[in-house]
Amino acid sequence: MSPKRMIMRRAESGGPQRPVMLAIAGDSASGKTTLTKGLAEALGHERNESMCTDDYHRYDREERASLPFTALHPSCNYLGIMEQHLQLLALGEPILKPVYNHHHGTLERPELVEPRDFHVIEGLFPLYSPLSRACFDLKVFLDPPESIRRRWKVARDTRERGYTAEQVIADLEKREDDSAAFIRPQRQWADIVVQFAPIQERHESEQGPLSATVLLRPTVPHPDLSAVLTEDTREAMHLKLARDEDGKPVDALHVHAYASRDTTRRVEESIWASLGIDDNFPDCLGTIGKGERSEPLAVVQLIILYHMLLARAAQRDQVEVGAVRP
Amino acid sequence: MSPKRMIMRRAESGGPQRPVMLAIAGDSASGKTTLTKGLAEALGHERNESMCTDDYHRYDREERASLPFTALHPSCNYLGIMEQHLQLLALGEPILKPVYNHHHGTLERPELVEPRDFHVIEGLFPLYSPLSRACFDLKVFLDPPESIRRRWKVARDTRERGYTAEQVIADLEKREDDSAAFIRPQRQWADIVVQFAPIQERHESEQGPLSATVLLRPTVPHPDLSAVLTEDTREAMHLKLARDEDGKPVDALHVHAYASRDTTRRVEESIWASLGIDDNFPDCLGTIGKGERSEPLAVVQLIILYHMLLARAAQRDQVEVGAVRP
Repeated sequence: MSPKRMIMRRAESGGPQRPVMLAIAGDSASGKTTLTKGLAEALGHERNESMCTDDYHRYDREERASLPFTALHPSCNYLGIMEQHLQLLALGEPILKPVYNHHHGTLERPELVEPRDFHVIEGLFPLYSPLSRACFDLKVFLDPPESIRRRWKVARDTRERGYTAEQVIADLEKREDDSAAFIRPQRQWADIVVQFAPIQERHESEQGPLSATVLLRPTVPHPDLSAVLTEDTREAMHLKLARDEDGKPVDALHVHAYASRDTTRRVEESIWASLGIDDNFPDCLGTIGKGERSEPLAVVQLIILYHMLLARAAQRDQVEVGAVRP
Repeated sequence: MSPKRMIMRRAESGGPQRPVMLAIAGDSASGKTTLTKGLAEALGHERNESMCTDDYHRYDREERASLPFTALHPSCNYLGIMEQHLQLLALGEPILKPVYNHHHGTLERPELVEPRDFHVIEGLFPLYSPLSRACFDLKVFLDPPESIRRRWKVARDTRERGYTAEQVIADLEKREDDSAAFIRPQRQWADIVVQFAPIQERHESEQGPLSATVLLRPTVPHPDLSAVLTEDTREAMHLKLARDEDGKPVDALHVHAYASRDTTRRVEESIWASLGIDDNFPDCLGTIGKGERSEPLAVVQLIILYHMLLARAAQRDQVEVGAVRP
């Protein structure tokens, strides 16, 4: 049997239990890790493995210093290999994933990733190419206002990655062109666009807890929120027909930071109940740091979780239907 | 388009210019690197990339020290990933190959391997599994007598890998079971089995230049040596019908170390001429060290080269035939 026939046979037969794949794309320090963490915890480490596409950096920090482009440029990453690995994972095959160490800025020995029920793939480039996008069951883009993202990036990179505030600010300037050219355009391919930001009509401030605007694009069937969102819950959340940046119609869900925990929780539990799952409501959602919570984050995570669990259930049904065929 | 359909489409359309793949399998210090080096030079670095499957070691030297098995055990290697990478390469897709540093015994950052015209894959495991074997156009196994292999291993590992002779000898003992269970059985899957050894009927010695016995199994069409090997060249080379270890019939080509360079060269040039290639006869064949030559090695390399160049020509013909189809 030729190798060509072989891979095809594996592709044909290896399908049924393929993982549910979620993309979380966004610029550096847009909140990807925080969003991913709660999802990963809710899904459980036996069922889910999260990974970051920064691991596909082609150069280490020292090498990048002398290059004419930043880590946000496609040439600075093994995007072809990233696509290949996403495809393999989506087909239920293991990969030997490269490893970029953010703390030291070094490329290290690769590690085995075996297919699980769920894979959360977060990073700068998961929605960059058609081949990559085709691997995902749900595509999310994080789109905070630049002023907030810059504040988050300075805080994170000085705390965790050994940079000074001045270095981070200089780096942000250096990255601006690549960000505009390669990262922000990925927003257009997402099923869900999330913006954590003060809602201006309510005179909220950037310094306080942030509300969320969640654009639910009609590219996937979202949970039916009409039964959940009533006049009672309006102070916590409401859905509004809106126009996207490009003028296309979209559902805009506003989740308010100042709503009472009780009201938000009631909405969250209704969404959870609509899934028809026996499990208890996952309490890990909404965590942003030690003891800190964000109800808007919890709602965003819940909606994403809804999609992932439903995709898994749909796959199981398909497998069962497939199994009784002659 | 689902990711499953996508990989299949790539497999269907990506075929024609797939690389010619050669496996050189054998135990540690059986002569794989020396054999590979001359082939790689003859093929040229633009057309060929050689790699060693030791790169698929799962553990570094320090980790291996506390494990109950040696590097010759399948569990000590990412063999599933090795299979996957060989399949991808055979289909003309790039891979991000892990890297094992033999000098330091460490696992390092992976490196990109892009498909070339030829790939020489040498190592302990290329013929271990059916999936792996199916990737190769030609499969070679190196089978020196244990006494010679042990001498080579002590010399190489003390010179290049920072071990003492005592450590190498202890290591050989430790590896014996795994070698017998997992490495030597791969001999059965080779198209060509090569044994560099004194030919006893001629009272040759292990200390002098080594002759070669080359088993040409009828699993692939070998060059027609009947026109080349005459009474005139008998002192350099002769072909003998023989029985393999398992009793199966096989062509045994004896290449004598003590033959005159002129006679051997005449045979080599005849094989080369039979390829109908315009290129000059490659002078790099037969090199074993600084200024040292082995004519038996040159003949073995030439026969392998014959197969690789012919496989490439056959592929080109297929592509051309394919191209004029309606």
